[in-house]
Amino acid sequence: MINHKRIGCEKLRAKVMSAEEAVSTFIASGNTIGMSGFTGSGYPKAVPLALAAKIEAEHAAGNPFRVSVWTGASTGPELDGALARANGVEFRLPYNSDPIARDKINRGEMNYFDMHLSQVAPVAWQGFLGPLDVAVIEIVGIHEDGSLIPSSSVGNNKTWLDRASRIILEVNSWQNPALEGMHDIYYGTALPPNRVPIPLIRADDRIGQTTFRCDPEKVVAVIETDSPDRNLPFTPPDEVAKRIANHLLDFFAHEVKRGRLPENLLPLQSGVGNIANAVLSGLLDGPFENMTAYTEVIQDGMLDLLDCGKLRMASATAFSLSPDAAVALNANMERYRDKMILRPQEISNHPEVIRRLGCLAMNGLIEADIYGNVNSTHVMGSRIQNGIGGSGDFARNAYVSIFVTPSTAKGGKISAIVPQVSHVDHINQDVQVIVTEHGLADLRGLSPKQKAAVIIENCAHPDFRPALADYFRRAKEHSYGLHSPSLLDEALSWHQRFVKTGTMHDTGA
Amino acid sequence: MINHKRIGCEKLRAKVMSAEEAVSTFIASGNTIGMSGFTGSGYPKAVPLALAAKIEAEHAAGNPFRVSVWTGASTGPELDGALARANGVEFRLPYNSDPIARDKINRGEMNYFDMHLSQVAPVAWQGFLGPLDVAVIEIVGIHEDGSLIPSSSVGNNKTWLDRASRIILEVNSWQNPALEGMHDIYYGTALPPNRVPIPLIRADDRIGQTTFRCDPEKVVAVIETDSPDRNLPFTPPDEVAKRIANHLLDFFAHEVKRGRLPENLLPLQSGVGNIANAVLSGLLDGPFENMTAYTEVIQDGMLDLLDCGKLRMASATAFSLSPDAAVALNANMERYRDKMILRPQEISNHPEVIRRLGCLAMNGLIEADIYGNVNSTHVMGSRIQNGIGGSGDFARNAYVSIFVTPSTAKGGKISAIVPQVSHVDHINQDVQVIVTEHGLADLRGLSPKQKAAVIIENCAHPDFRPALADYFRRAKEHSYGLHSPSLLDEALSWHQRFVKTGTMHDTGA
Ligand SMILES: CC(C)(COP(=O)(O)OP(=O)(O)OC[C@H]1O[C@@H](n2cnc3c(N)ncnc32)[C@H](O)[C@@H]1OP(=O)(O)O)[C@@H](O)C(=O)NCCC(=O)NCCS
Ligand SMILES: CC(C)(COP(=O)(O)OP(=O)(O)OC[C@H]1O[C@@H](n2cnc3c(N)ncnc32)[C@H](O)[C@@H]1OP(=O)(O)O)[C@@H](O)C(=O)NCCC(=O)NCCS
Repeated sequence: MINHKRIGCEKLRAKVMSAEEAVSTFIASGNTIGMSGFTGSGYPKAVPLALAAKIEAEHAAGNPFRVSVWTGASTGPELDGALARANGVEFRLPYNSDPIARDKINRGEMNYFDMHLSQVAPVAWQGFLGPLDVAVIEIVGIHEDGSLIPSSSVGNNKTWLDRASRIILEVNSWQNPALEGMHDIYYGTALPPNRVPIPLIRADDRIGQTTFRCDPEKVVAVIETDSPDRNLPFTPPDEVAKRIANHLLDFFAHEVKRGRLPENLLPLQSGVGNIANAVLSGLLDGPFENMTAYTEVIQDGMLDLLDCGKLRMASATAFSLSPDAAVALNANMERYRDKMILRPQEISNHPEVIRRLGCLAMNGLIEADIYGNVNSTHVMGSRIQNGIGGSGDFARNAYVSIFVTPSTAKGGKISAIVPQVSHVDHINQDVQVIVTEHGLADLRGLSPKQKAAVIIENCAHPDFRPALADYFRRAKEHSYGLHSPSLLDEALSWHQRFVKTGTMHDTGA
Repeated sequence: MINHKRIGCEKLRAKVMSAEEAVSTFIASGNTIGMSGFTGSGYPKAVPLALAAKIEAEHAAGNPFRVSVWTGASTGPELDGALARANGVEFRLPYNSDPIARDKINRGEMNYFDMHLSQVAPVAWQGFLGPLDVAVIEIVGIHEDGSLIPSSSVGNNKTWLDRASRIILEVNSWQNPALEGMHDIYYGTALPPNRVPIPLIRADDRIGQTTFRCDPEKVVAVIETDSPDRNLPFTPPDEVAKRIANHLLDFFAHEVKRGRLPENLLPLQSGVGNIANAVLSGLLDGPFENMTAYTEVIQDGMLDLLDCGKLRMASATAFSLSPDAAVALNANMERYRDKMILRPQEISNHPEVIRRLGCLAMNGLIEADIYGNVNSTHVMGSRIQNGIGGSGDFARNAYVSIFVTPSTAKGGKISAIVPQVSHVDHINQDVQVIVTEHGLADLRGLSPKQKAAVIIENCAHPDFRPALADYFRRAKEHSYGLHSPSLLDEALSWHQRFVKTGTMHDTGA
């Protein structure tokens, strides 16, 4: 039953077993586990489910059983969802978008360490997070020499394999063997004082090898799976998304005309989500040719751009494709192979590389304030949505850092532009452009009060614009200081009102 | 009268004139002027004063006259103070610490663009800030071939000289000619897509040349000055500063013992201010040998460390010495020459280099909140103190990002630890350690609620600790979400109380 093609190393064939056996033999309560997975790609599908079952059984028997989980970023329901439902996660880093886990975190039942994605691997090496007991890594296959063929995401797998005491491999036959060769695993990182420049100067440079090295002595179990990645479908761009995309394309065209961007733009980084995907769709009809992408994830929109030749190549750390696009990619892998590179996230998100390449960063937000500070993570200041992810790596180092958002949320009850954000992820210095369906605010070179005028005028929803303008006018009269005028007793009142009444609109109640 | 030794280029000797003549001939209202200067070092001493006089005369005659001023960072009273007093500055970037200019900004009479110091030069090249009309640069001397010997700060001078349409040079005979050779001016930067790695891998690497290139055709005036840099004296470390320094030294020793820092530490970055200087003094008696510094400014404390040999070398973009230390340095320049390198601030503060070297960053703050978010700039959320300066370049890229502060300000009326900061400059992800005289909070790897417990317990002043603990306890009961629990109606109430009553203490009034 063992797939000899996928598991080419004899020594490791001897370690094939069931996920249940691997879990009960090699994972103990209190362990720290480094798992593969970045968005819905390349996460282990069997071991986390078996672990969740084991945890539930232990809990039912009255025994405590919880683990710490480190990953690349978000994963699929079989990992974060299952473990959270089982109440099995004591500590989680660096990113989560699973609704069940989110709920646990927001009930105060799970400790979540929300990190810059570029820093996960270096921080794991720094040592203060403690040892990594087990690595659980999905791969496409194992070579005779024991080296591993990476799967549909790279994330922190290199680091987990190097750092863990024990390694459990999941060999997933669902993943296309033609993925081999697409990856670029760079082994030149080190801790200071031994760090050297990352020798990547173009988005399509290859600086590493196509496989992971792996000490076979550390591999304690190999599990065979045949299970699809579970990404979420994108909704087709609606009118709001299209208008946001159009404003942004106009901005790019304007910058090219002024000689401030090259005609093929600069490497694109595009955040997750529907709006980001809509912008990519917009580029399909735009005038820009020969583009490149240096980004975290390759979405549907990028495949379309590669198809039509407008995008020359895309570098990322993972795929993040809708089920349909994943099938299409799988069926036509050969066509895309030379146009895509998947790297460790410490490289896809490396500040050094992002700044050098001069990425055009486009990310989503929860809310922005009139001074251009952005909250990407905390609804009403306290409830985590996902996490900062790679947005800080890109926003601070981008050539132009752009944030895109509908001007309202929750059916118009919430304004995405507020007097003061309830939490800050991106300080105004890292936010150069904000785009909503109503317009684009180019904040470069503006002082705080100049920014406020443009954001209120160009980005706010007309239903909230007068109240924002009124706040700003009164703040300029009564603020303690007039550099970034604020009314301390009103700054968070819109959020208070929403929590109390279910809307940010002042209904006079 | 012309000093032939200082002005070795005949062509430029012909352009020697008075500051008044240079101003009236070459600076017009509406001009954008790039000036030298970083902290109280190397700023032009004559032209800004002449410009202020001219502006005052024009204003008296009923003529509008204002300019935009770009510098390295803060400067001396003859520049920022004089121009602000004359009401002559329309727009100012990237940093200011002059009290008169601060007051203008906080009255809403001056537009201030508060920037990451690493980004000033790249942003000037990007072009959207508009053209640079004039550069006014203090130098030590001019070589026969027209190249320039940099002064006691480098800042953005390279960029101003390259970008400006007209150049005015101030040759300051007060500056020691032995400064020559100490600088390292790197000409390898470019805009993307042409950027390449910065080839600096040790704090003491030299990657450039010792002089500025300068197109003599663009030089319209040369002014001779003989005028001291005007830095402020440091106050000797008080008990609070010493206790902060001791906590930090204990932390370093602990990290070395655990094998998480090398015995000679990693390159030190030390912010401006008295506490930072106290930490340096503390290192004099500490166990660490053979240290290096990769920082923005070289303070008194660093000279002492160089003297005793504990510090092997220091790299910065400027001196920031007390008058006494400046005299001592001037008298003993030969002794320090090989141990110090002054670089352009785009290199001293380059995120790529800071992350590669793994700096230990130590910066001051205005306030931090219980979740470890830091406000370095805005008193009560609206009144600018100085600006973010280079703190964001270092905090986000440091090996360990440390913030140091007394636990209270204004004689105990203000708590430096608050429920929620009124403005954010450094997000909690970029704040790993907070130190006050009461203790040190090591926040690495902690979730928000774990951070809050440690910060309240270790860092808050005992007079404010119970109120913080009470807030945190109630937030955990009533918050909208429990990831980072907050009470929206109380989060900024400490600041409101201070503005209303002059103290953050709840006096029941
Ligand atoms: C900010 C972020 C959540 C926006 O996501 P998106 O998919 O573009 O936007 P959506 O409008 O679908 O919003 C997602 C959810 O947040 C809610 N939301 C958005 N703005 C909100 C606001 N101001 N207040 C309350 N809820 C809000 C939406 O209603 C939606 O909730 P639902 O899932 O219950 O319907 C997302 O971009 C993110 O997680 N960013 C941080 C990480 C990141 O940037 N990663 C990419 C970096 S490389
Ligand atoms: C934050 C910063 C102002 C602290 O400066 P410092 O010299 O260490 O600290 P001080 O305690 O002397 O504080 C400076 C002033 O701010 C005031 N202050 C400090 N904390 C305050 C608070 N929480 N509320 C109100 N005022 C406060 C002090 O009272 C003092 O005011 P004064 O000049 O009127 O007496 C300073 O570090 C800074 O400007 N940082 C930002 C830039 C930076 O970090 N540069 C170095 C980077 S490489």
